[in-house]
Amino acid sequence: MHTLPLVWELGRSANAEEKPAEFIPAQVPGAVQLDFLRAQGGKDFFFADNFHVFDGWEDLFYTYRARFEVPVLKDGQSLYFVSKGIDYAYDIFFNGKKLFSVEGMFARVQCDLTAYLRAQNELLVRVHPAPKRAGAAVSRAQADHSVKPAVSYGWDWHPRVIPLGIWDETFLEIREAVHLGEFSLNYTLNDALNCAHVSAVIEGVGLAGRMGRVELFDAGHCVFSHDGKIAHDGSLPAFNFPNPKLWWTHDHGAPHLYKARASVLDETGERLAQKSGRVGFRRIRLVTNEGAWDEPLKFPKTRSAPPAQLELNGRAIFAKGSNWVNPEIFPGTLTRERYDELLCLAKDAHFNCLRVWGGGIVNKESFYELADEKGILIWQEFPLACNQYPDDPHYLSVLEKEARAIILRLKKHACLGLWCGGNELFNSWGKMTEQSLALRLLGALTLQLDPTTPFIPTSPLMGMAHGHYLFRDMQQDEDVFEIFNRARHTAYTEFGVSSLASVESLKKIIPQDELFPVRETPAWKAHHALRAWKPERNEWLCPEAIDYYFGTAPTLETLVERSQLMQAQGYKGIYEHARRQKPYCAMALNWCYNEAWPCAANNSLLSYPAEPKPAYEAVRQSCRPVCLSARFEKFLWSQGEEFSFELWLLNDSFEKTTPSTVRALVCGVGGEPIELLQWAYETPAPNANLRGPTARLRLPHWEGDRFTVRLEDTKHPARSSQYVLAYRARTQTSAAHNTPTATLN
Amino acid sequence: MHTLPLVWELGRSANAEEKPAEFIPAQVPGAVQLDFLRAQGGKDFFFADNFHVFDGWEDLFYTYRARFEVPVLKDGQSLYFVSKGIDYAYDIFFNGKKLFSVEGMFARVQCDLTAYLRAQNELLVRVHPAPKRAGAAVSRAQADHSVKPAVSYGWDWHPRVIPLGIWDETFLEIREAVHLGEFSLNYTLNDALNCAHVSAVIEGVGLAGRMGRVELFDAGHCVFSHDGKIAHDGSLPAFNFPNPKLWWTHDHGAPHLYKARASVLDETGERLAQKSGRVGFRRIRLVTNEGAWDEPLKFPKTRSAPPAQLELNGRAIFAKGSNWVNPEIFPGTLTRERYDELLCLAKDAHFNCLRVWGGGIVNKESFYELADEKGILIWQEFPLACNQYPDDPHYLSVLEKEARAIILRLKKHACLGLWCGGNELFNSWGKMTEQSLALRLLGALTLQLDPTTPFIPTSPLMGMAHGHYLFRDMQQDEDVFEIFNRARHTAYTEFGVSSLASVESLKKIIPQDELFPVRETPAWKAHHALRAWKPERNEWLCPEAIDYYFGTAPTLETLVERSQLMQAQGYKGIYEHARRQKPYCAMALNWCYNEAWPCAANNSLLSYPAEPKPAYEAVRQSCRPVCLSARFEKFLWSQGEEFSFELWLLNDSFEKTTPSTVRALVCGVGGEPIELLQWAYETPAPNANLRGPTARLRLPHWEGDRFTVRLEDTKHPARSSQYVLAYRARTQTSAAHNTPTATLN
Repeated sequence: MHTLPLVWELGRSANAEEKPAEFIPAQVPGAVQLDFLRAQGGKDFFFADNFHVFDGWEDLFYTYRARFEVPVLKDGQSLYFVSKGIDYAYDIFFNGKKLFSVEGMFARVQCDLTAYLRAQNELLVRVHPAPKRAGAAVSRAQADHSVKPAVSYGWDWHPRVIPLGIWDETFLEIREAVHLGEFSLNYTLNDALNCAHVSAVIEGVGLAGRMGRVELFDAGHCVFSHDGKIAHDGSLPAFNFPNPKLWWTHDHGAPHLYKARASVLDETGERLAQKSGRVGFRRIRLVTNEGAWDEPLKFPKTRSAPPAQLELNGRAIFAKGSNWVNPEIFPGTLTRERYDELLCLAKDAHFNCLRVWGGGIVNKESFYELADEKGILIWQEFPLACNQYPDDPHYLSVLEKEARAIILRLKKHACLGLWCGGNELFNSWGKMTEQSLALRLLGALTLQLDPTTPFIPTSPLMGMAHGHYLFRDMQQDEDVFEIFNRARHTAYTEFGVSSLASVESLKKIIPQDELFPVRETPAWKAHHALRAWKPERNEWLCPEAIDYYFGTAPTLETLVERSQLMQAQGYKGIYEHARRQKPYCAMALNWCYNEAWPCAANNSLLSYPAEPKPAYEAVRQSCRPVCLSARFEKFLWSQGEEFSFELWLLNDSFEKTTPSTVRALVCGVGGEPIELLQWAYETPAPNANLRGPTARLRLPHWEGDRFTVRLEDTKHPARSSQYVLAYRARTQTSAAHNTPTATLN
Repeated sequence: MHTLPLVWELGRSANAEEKPAEFIPAQVPGAVQLDFLRAQGGKDFFFADNFHVFDGWEDLFYTYRARFEVPVLKDGQSLYFVSKGIDYAYDIFFNGKKLFSVEGMFARVQCDLTAYLRAQNELLVRVHPAPKRAGAAVSRAQADHSVKPAVSYGWDWHPRVIPLGIWDETFLEIREAVHLGEFSLNYTLNDALNCAHVSAVIEGVGLAGRMGRVELFDAGHCVFSHDGKIAHDGSLPAFNFPNPKLWWTHDHGAPHLYKARASVLDETGERLAQKSGRVGFRRIRLVTNEGAWDEPLKFPKTRSAPPAQLELNGRAIFAKGSNWVNPEIFPGTLTRERYDELLCLAKDAHFNCLRVWGGGIVNKESFYELADEKGILIWQEFPLACNQYPDDPHYLSVLEKEARAIILRLKKHACLGLWCGGNELFNSWGKMTEQSLALRLLGALTLQLDPTTPFIPTSPLMGMAHGHYLFRDMQQDEDVFEIFNRARHTAYTEFGVSSLASVESLKKIIPQDELFPVRETPAWKAHHALRAWKPERNEWLCPEAIDYYFGTAPTLETLVERSQLMQAQGYKGIYEHARRQKPYCAMALNWCYNEAWPCAANNSLLSYPAEPKPAYEAVRQSCRPVCLSARFEKFLWSQGEEFSFELWLLNDSFEKTTPSTVRALVCGVGGEPIELLQWAYETPAPNANLRGPTARLRLPHWEGDRFTVRLEDTKHPARSSQYVLAYRARTQTSAAHNTPTATLN
């Protein structure tokens, strides 16, 4: 088997019948919009509201064309056209004959062209306009009858740009009479986790009845080999692999992977074909959170909260991480390198779990390969989000085809921790339920094809929580500390605190004369910094909240600094709040990790393409396996007020943690550090937090609008933590802050 | 095709190898225990604790034997052994050869005996001991690895007696070369509900390629006929049946059924074989309760409550009914007549829904036929209850076989309203979750085989409620009114108030000298009247609660009267509470309807076999489609206290309801009726309640320990309602009632 590249051109037309007037060079994988933008001179569509250049392009037909000479085919060989992804509905023509009409961007295409070959060949892929439900408003609702990621139809942090075209690897392939395609090693681990019972299944042509071989390699050495006759369904006789090294997330061990090789042998034992892959052995379960069976207490009673606790190889692990969104508006441009820089930062942040949000794509293969290697669990959603996907037979048939392809591709990855039907489907803006056939279908398919990976229909479920997404809810008159101190949930699977991007980033997307003061210009609005979400709220910049604490900012630099400080402190507060609620709580995943283009303001930890905001470093500190933490009642404190906070040692480690002493210090601007107490903490139980004393201080007079709390670990400085809170001296005039005086002492 | 009866004998042995020493006559269908009891002279096992006669019998092997001469078989004919149910694990031997070993009581047996026939034939069915999980305590937990109803292992109202044997129709059948077995008409109704799109599937032998015919008859007249070629999977080309008369529950319309006939035709159009059945056309959905999408309100927020609203033919109907349990300890004795008397009473009580509880059996066919005819929706559970059924491959394979058989049999019935995985599996005493493979499997199978009927994994789900089961919770110091007035749920799918059986019934099961005063004797305990459920509580008689209100009863008659009064008034309170919460609440199903043997005290509305308690009539009044209702704060009121209650018109009718006037009257013993107010109520909206005024009265001095509230409808006496509440005059001494005085004014 070997592959042949294709050279592509692209044309467009207003309807299916019309042939394109001209063809331009096309980049594959990519997107039709990028090719035509390039042909027009390549305007920077990130800048200001330039993305409107794509308006209307989503409604055209696009034709990819590749011409090639007939390759030399030996006896028994076939020529296949293979594509790992064409977005979204398309027809394939070969030498004038229509071979296929397909809907769906995730199932791979494999067309045997052999019978239709001529000396000179022409392959056409005609891509249809973006799918839209007839009658739906111009919004994500247009995506609610297709398996097309809804985010492209416009979101509160994503412009409306609907990619189309060939978006993943695509080529010609010469296949032998005996062809070995994909193979998978399905396994279960025994209770002691020291033996894997493995069923190998090999796809391909001409395999049935032949001998097959499965080999496992560790660090280059073959550590296991198993021969057996290949059955008609491609399966080999099952075997036991004793004492597998287990795959762990990076924070709990090594993400061990074996190289796996499947071969088909001839009568003499020679290899006719082979294919390599990898396998990591782990047992993943979703189990009931500790304490959940004790609720509800009294009759009449409803059920206990459903499981939200990941258990990896028998360990109930606390999932720390984030919500992953498409890293590009055009996923066709995604590369292994692009995934790698983002996943390296995730691992550095001590994240052991990423939720691949259902509003976006199922990622390319390299994403999961990298997560396998780095030891990061992937919560994978199907492409359903915030919509009411129907019980319609056509939609269900496309969903079934696409879901089968997704499950069969991803189930091979050790990183796959959880299947999920999609995002926020059981809330009023989704209005789906357990009775929705799409979700029943996804439950049945994951059970059939990948029964050892848990499945949940959506997030949030009962006991889990999404939101809040504001540092301060001006309507509720509460800050993020007040809101979350009241909350008690099994998992915080979305929560957001926004900030502006860096000044440098802003300058790349906002015209110079609009930079400051921030006002409602097309550029700011396009980049979701003002009134992005709901008309009545200034999201995601939230200027009222910044002004509430610090007054009107005199410069853009000051505004950015304040905004980023609030994001960092807000996120620290929530992550640590969630960790303090362990073991009842088992997850903290903020909304969101990255962004698909440069947002002026967003809840993301990283600005596009992969630039850490200050909140990233703050969250990284809050996610250290063992660290000190302070629990605050609120963000803003005033001179003369009794300030207090609880000390905690947060401990997600299953190793023995050494005891130490912590000094709690408070320091305001113009003041000396004040030591409030010392706490000599004991060795905590594995994977258990310690709750320490409460420190108190009548706040003195300081300068400035903020003060610092430091928890200094005397023996283990790496466990130390630091916080910044807002401060108001009595001498300040309240007018400067435009604050209701009722909230001040 | 015709059937031949068999004459059965039965033997038993201690192990599988040992042959029975002797055979006794056997009754089929029946139970092995009943045959041996009969052979021993037939002790009344209902009396006292006589049921212990069966102790140990569950652990023996039983062999059914039937001998018969070879019947005359024409060319192409075959002889089949058919059984609709053998309980639980068994082997089938024919003329010395073992043909099958089977586990599971619900899948029917069809064995082709033709090839093994001799002149004299012997058929043996060897039934294994009752399944028990090794190591489990002697309790329902022993049933947690099998698809055997758990109730037989002992429950708080059911003795431990585990039936075994042939429990449903069983016979020989001569089949033709062209054999027509079961057929089903799968249909979907269009949105307008005026056209059914029907797919007919016929099972059988020798059908493929032949012409088939499906006919529908209404009142004896053929109203539709459709011919088509039978495909290899038994399906005929789909067809549309226009303007079907819809099937309704009896309270919303007529439960219309068509007779259906499937035929196989020869080349000349003559019938080779035919089979008749029935079909009712209805669309059943489980939809989100009104108001549930508005919750939760604030961030961080979890999901909205899952659907608990049945929608029949587009109508959101309030489900009024009860929990159905096995009407006999030995289900093999169940007959159509036995089902009929119970279902007639259910219909008379205005019940439109019965929950067939997962602790018991899936009923025999006549149960569902009668429910089809009477217009009662059936909530059908699979046989899982209050246990943690495992992810074990063997258990799952038996469950899959049994569930397939159950689904394919029951899906033909118009009465089938809801599939449910089982009882209370998501609470601490079940400890199953959505991740349990058994429940994922049942979800997948119901989707595959019966996608138009809703499925829920268990009850209660989020928002639904089970309990309370006491008139007065002595620990919480609250009565049923106080407890439920605080409750707000989408569905009350279990709630119980107990009472003693009638004096006459008690005399049949309790020895004369133990009847009164009630005390802890083996007879009382066996019949679950004292400390049935938990050692620390006196369930289900609850003597402390009766004494709390009325003091020590001087006679058994008085005790029974008080107990039954409390049950009646308590149930009225809960049913009407649930109805008042419509539309957010959509179901009221009490625990329980009937009982499997004569309980001395139980939450049932009917004493064994089908004797209405006073609560039955009270509930019947509370379930009238249109009726007046009073909302009380509590049960016990004292002289001088300000007594109050709200007036309501409860209205589940979709027809126009005429206005009227209601007089609210209160009457104590020795006093004249006092009219508190008149309320002239308007025409309510269809299917909507009216909330009326609140009546108030400073309670005067009366005689006696109770008083009456009457709501008299002046134009529609059939809507009038009456309640009895407990009363305490100031002159009474509190010592007599053993009541904390703090609860009195």
